[in-house]
Amino acid sequence: MAEKTVLNWQVGWSDSADEAPARMVPAQVPGAVQLDWARAEGWGDHTYGENWRQYGWMEDKYWTYRARIEPTLLSAEERLIFVSLGIDYSFRVLLNGEELLRQEGMFTPVELDVTDAAGAGGTLEIIVDPAPKRTTAPHDRSQAAHSCKPAVSYGWDWHPRLVTLGIWDETYLTSIPSHRLTEAEVIYTLSEDLTTASLTLTACLGAPADGELAWVVRDPNGEEVLRRTVPISAADRGIATDRAELARLMLWWPHDQGEQPLYTSEVMWLPSDLALATDIRVQRIGFRRVRLVMHEGAWREPSTFPKSRSHPPTTLEINGRRVFGKGTNWVHPDIFPGRFDREMYSALLQLAKDAHMNLLRVWGGGVVNKKSFFELCDEMGLMVWQEFPLACNLYPDDPAYLSVLDRESRSIVRRLRGHASLVLWCGGNELFNAWSGMTDQSLPLRLLNANCLELDSGTPFLMTSPLDGMGHGHYMFRYSETKDVLQAMIEADNTAYTEFGMPAPAPAELIRRFIPEAEWFPPRPGTSWESHHAFKALSDNMWLMEDHLEHYFGPSDSLEQLVERGQLLQSVGYTAIYEEARRQKPKCAMALNWCYNEPWPAAANNSIVCWPAVPKPGYYAVQAACRPVLASARIPRFDWREGEWFEPELWLLNDSTNALPPGSIEAWLRLPDGTRRLLMRWEHEGAGAGENSRGPTARFRMPAIGSGRMQLQLEATGHPEWNSLYTLLLKGAEDRAPARQLLNLQEEAME
Amino acid sequence: MAEKTVLNWQVGWSDSADEAPARMVPAQVPGAVQLDWARAEGWGDHTYGENWRQYGWMEDKYWTYRARIEPTLLSAEERLIFVSLGIDYSFRVLLNGEELLRQEGMFTPVELDVTDAAGAGGTLEIIVDPAPKRTTAPHDRSQAAHSCKPAVSYGWDWHPRLVTLGIWDETYLTSIPSHRLTEAEVIYTLSEDLTTASLTLTACLGAPADGELAWVVRDPNGEEVLRRTVPISAADRGIATDRAELARLMLWWPHDQGEQPLYTSEVMWLPSDLALATDIRVQRIGFRRVRLVMHEGAWREPSTFPKSRSHPPTTLEINGRRVFGKGTNWVHPDIFPGRFDREMYSALLQLAKDAHMNLLRVWGGGVVNKKSFFELCDEMGLMVWQEFPLACNLYPDDPAYLSVLDRESRSIVRRLRGHASLVLWCGGNELFNAWSGMTDQSLPLRLLNANCLELDSGTPFLMTSPLDGMGHGHYMFRYSETKDVLQAMIEADNTAYTEFGMPAPAPAELIRRFIPEAEWFPPRPGTSWESHHAFKALSDNMWLMEDHLEHYFGPSDSLEQLVERGQLLQSVGYTAIYEEARRQKPKCAMALNWCYNEPWPAAANNSIVCWPAVPKPGYYAVQAACRPVLASARIPRFDWREGEWFEPELWLLNDSTNALPPGSIEAWLRLPDGTRRLLMRWEHEGAGAGENSRGPTARFRMPAIGSGRMQLQLEATGHPEWNSLYTLLLKGAEDRAPARQLLNLQEEAME
Repeated sequence: MAEKTVLNWQVGWSDSADEAPARMVPAQVPGAVQLDWARAEGWGDHTYGENWRQYGWMEDKYWTYRARIEPTLLSAEERLIFVSLGIDYSFRVLLNGEELLRQEGMFTPVELDVTDAAGAGGTLEIIVDPAPKRTTAPHDRSQAAHSCKPAVSYGWDWHPRLVTLGIWDETYLTSIPSHRLTEAEVIYTLSEDLTTASLTLTACLGAPADGELAWVVRDPNGEEVLRRTVPISAADRGIATDRAELARLMLWWPHDQGEQPLYTSEVMWLPSDLALATDIRVQRIGFRRVRLVMHEGAWREPSTFPKSRSHPPTTLEINGRRVFGKGTNWVHPDIFPGRFDREMYSALLQLAKDAHMNLLRVWGGGVVNKKSFFELCDEMGLMVWQEFPLACNLYPDDPAYLSVLDRESRSIVRRLRGHASLVLWCGGNELFNAWSGMTDQSLPLRLLNANCLELDSGTPFLMTSPLDGMGHGHYMFRYSETKDVLQAMIEADNTAYTEFGMPAPAPAELIRRFIPEAEWFPPRPGTSWESHHAFKALSDNMWLMEDHLEHYFGPSDSLEQLVERGQLLQSVGYTAIYEEARRQKPKCAMALNWCYNEPWPAAANNSIVCWPAVPKPGYYAVQAACRPVLASARIPRFDWREGEWFEPELWLLNDSTNALPPGSIEAWLRLPDGTRRLLMRWEHEGAGAGENSRGPTARFRMPAIGSGRMQLQLEATGHPEWNSLYTLLLKGAEDRAPARQLLNLQEEAME
Repeated sequence: MAEKTVLNWQVGWSDSADEAPARMVPAQVPGAVQLDWARAEGWGDHTYGENWRQYGWMEDKYWTYRARIEPTLLSAEERLIFVSLGIDYSFRVLLNGEELLRQEGMFTPVELDVTDAAGAGGTLEIIVDPAPKRTTAPHDRSQAAHSCKPAVSYGWDWHPRLVTLGIWDETYLTSIPSHRLTEAEVIYTLSEDLTTASLTLTACLGAPADGELAWVVRDPNGEEVLRRTVPISAADRGIATDRAELARLMLWWPHDQGEQPLYTSEVMWLPSDLALATDIRVQRIGFRRVRLVMHEGAWREPSTFPKSRSHPPTTLEINGRRVFGKGTNWVHPDIFPGRFDREMYSALLQLAKDAHMNLLRVWGGGVVNKKSFFELCDEMGLMVWQEFPLACNLYPDDPAYLSVLDRESRSIVRRLRGHASLVLWCGGNELFNAWSGMTDQSLPLRLLNANCLELDSGTPFLMTSPLDGMGHGHYMFRYSETKDVLQAMIEADNTAYTEFGMPAPAPAELIRRFIPEAEWFPPRPGTSWESHHAFKALSDNMWLMEDHLEHYFGPSDSLEQLVERGQLLQSVGYTAIYEEARRQKPKCAMALNWCYNEPWPAAANNSIVCWPAVPKPGYYAVQAACRPVLASARIPRFDWREGEWFEPELWLLNDSTNALPPGSIEAWLRLPDGTRRLLMRWEHEGAGAGENSRGPTARFRMPAIGSGRMQLQLEATGHPEWNSLYTLLLKGAEDRAPARQLLNLQEEAME
């Protein structure tokens, strides 16, 4: 395997494609032109205060990267190749002023022969065009509607307007033999009983030659379980295929269902002509079968005439076992994809796994992650729902757009299809909702379906989320004057909750790092709080939602108090949604909150992990709600009044692969005055593997002991790890909040 | 254009593939082996009584067609070619005992070079395999679930078990020059304003040669509107493409929306070597743009959170204008596709057009029709919804099946995509319902979507019907003890009614022709009545449904009386459904009854046209309900009692392209005693083009004048062609039918 030489890049901007930059500054690659320029100018961190506003002008410039290729000694057999795994977004590559490539799209790798420059050296230039913008579109995400540029950087309710440009993935120079292996990919299908894999190896040489391939497969312990010699010949244009069976398979599972055994396939190229160089390709394989199946009972609905169809399937079946998809929506871990790296991914993915999540929906507003993301997911047993870069826009049936989407989507599928963790393809986000206006007839989505079928037919494909039966939202605690999220979720009846939010402020100590001191408290619109999404994000009160906090708790006196209250509501809300979604199993098959992380420090957001990887209290609430086994209570409201009947329904939730034995669960209520009442003791009969058990409903009259927080405490005898706590409010008769008008539930709020 | 020689075929059967038939009989081609054998044996007509039972054994035999190719004089440039447009279903073709082709699938044409037989002559054999049957399947339609054989002949509730086999479409021998045109197809796209077509001609020679193509397009009046000379060369492998623009287009419309101008494209091949033969290809083109779009208001639903998606689009938009799809489900016009011909199609299609229908759903249980069907639809302005041969089965993700489906579907799309009438592709019938068990993830449907996208991206594609929001069924007058079809339809809320049935007996004089005299009256199960679907079709009482007739009318004394009553209920029911579907426009976009015609004489059926092309009274009721403009009444029940308040709501329905001026409509009730009461006069304000107008609701107390039929009569002043009649029942207080148990509404009934 050849060495990779990272070039010394400089970057500068100009107003037109023909004009050379007036000034060049050092460039970090991978990275972004914005980061390079800010570094050269000595700007303050873009995450602080209003600093992000300095970057606005850059999206409309032409940016030229320039690097010197030094003279390189090559053998007659060698070629000098320039490789870039990703350049954001539309660009030309020039060698000594001559154009080698013009490309639109950041997901199709660049591989260019620059051997001409090996002798005397040469100058490589990458000229990046201004960010694509649909003509006549307003200054928002809809500017991205006619390109494959991820829409998020055009501004979202949790992302500032900062349209990234530049080299965003690994980029280097390398010298390689002409007759190397350019491809050596193993595809498999599993036997119906899942014990045997049929492997198909397809290999290809850069230039036809005679020789053979030594193909070895090792099991996760390094033991050789397959060895084949595959002849390859110039007569067959240097293309070879081979098929083999692999028995006694160890299957890859999501981490909450089993192990993650990873096999290794090595293909070594052994030319007959000993003067030619050998080459080797290594691929890691986790064997699993993925299906998206109907939930139990789905075919019984609808039951009336005129009869429509049953809801489409949303239940993941891995290796023949139905797996509840418990997880979250993954967004950019940083504004700049050029900064995404294994370390950043690792910290966030480990937190997700620690929270018992098994499924990440990688939202279509952002980029398709780098290689290390998928390697980590393979290793950690995290399933990935991968969307293509379409979100909340009307992507057109236009031939020019379709041709870019065709190439980009093929590049994406080819790159990711070998990963065990990749369990679901999806066209993109909310494309069938009013604010996007696409339908099943939209050619971009029919094209993505066709490409996924052709290149990766073993992985299910959704055109978008939500589909019929699935639900997105809502994103707040109080749905109306009379209904909070606890009740709303009990009334909901969806097959999968693939987005639901619950906002909370960031911890006060973080807020103090990116909001200027003069603005700390009280938070006000028109300050850095607004830029950091506390106000006017989706609507005026989002995402700080002080009106909700005041409704329950009255005015806050300090930043700490405000934050604590907001974070409490997030914890209570997310607990309610995740647990109710699990109680609705098997009709419900997924619970994925919006959103997991964030690309920069939001003052308030639906995320449970602050940028870069700091858990909010809500994270721990989600972690508790996602435990494989827990005692759970269906509680129809957060705030209670004296004299009301409190009737929590008890459940034993089990997503584990074990059957649970009979036992007992006690429900205690700790009242605001510190006293603790035993509401009931449930002698449960256990639960089957992966099955919930529904228990009795307690009944207790709220006493007149004043106002304050109280706790419902569920205690599982002998299993303290199943215990659960629910914080609730008790209000005395005197403590009536003023009536308020109905909260705005307009769908515009979701845009 | 070469002459077509029809061969003299004989046919015989054997028990195995290797065995020769013991006896050969004359074969009619196209036809079916069953018809040939029955003719040779002198059997009675298969449509009479129980005669169809004689045919059962034939489906499991090997059938050998044999014909002699006589010595043929060919020039050096000529090849002798055997062509068959369709052989049902799996077969081999042999020349002098040597296998030339093995094929599974009846929709991919056969074209074989048999030049070897030109000199001395030869023997051509087609050995047709037994009908495909999924192993372990019961003796029903599910035997067809692993093949592309249309499922209907395995038995349906209106089709006897009679699995056709043999040569079913045009089949001949022809001598052709090697360098002829094998392809010359024009594809077009229309400009956004629909005034200009961009034409792309793709032409191909059977063997590469130099020369040119003279390409001429003529408008519907025969005027030349385009002439191009396109060079073609052996160097380009005899393949040429050309592009041209055609302005001032006359657009093709469905017959109720405008004219059907058909252009002609002629491509003449003019070789440079004058020794080579010229060739010509002619194609007819109707220019139109088809889209499937969301109905008005669709994006506002759903309005609540968690938010799912809006219903998928079902509104046809032709040339930018939304067109209500008013029509029917087309099934086989005969048991034997080999007998389908232009005359048979023409009679049925003219009746459909005369009934103001503009859309035919060609149901996936049957074959894809022959060329003349689509030529007639192009000429008559009838739109075609074409399904692939999948119906009510779980078609598998199996590679063997997928490869046949891939080839067959490509053949189908290539053959039909040039027809203006073809406005909708669909995967097949009721595939997303319980009795089929397929989903959006099923690979056969993803494959069909991909193939339609690749080969005909301008035509919308549905995976199946019904989709979410669409409705199928029910298929009877009384939905329950308390609800009839009139009320059920008012409560229905679908985006398209793409199947709904209402059974009626055939006319008595027809019944007497195919039911033996001894069985005429009263009809009984276990007789020919049952074979001809009067009993035990979907359930015991279907399709004669005497219990419904008795409920309203008491026992019938004669065949004539029974038939009259059943036909009345069909007329009343279909009137109610079509008109209510139209009243629900624009949310509702289609009304297609189940079914239009039938493949043989059914004693009772949901069809409105008896085999071969005899309208029932229900046909005329549908014709009235489908008039472009009519006065209509929303009536919530068929039978009324004295003292009840009768409250019909008046409407003016307008599917025409004209705005209607203000006017008046009178509602009269003609009571059983012959008296006629004016209920109200509605001074309406007219209606916009293609828009309905909802009027007032009358209110009238049913008088105590005994029992009998009555009529609501709507009379539009100055527009007698808009008048409508509704037959209803009035029952006196003494005339109470016995209470009955709830009718069986189980979904099994739909299978």
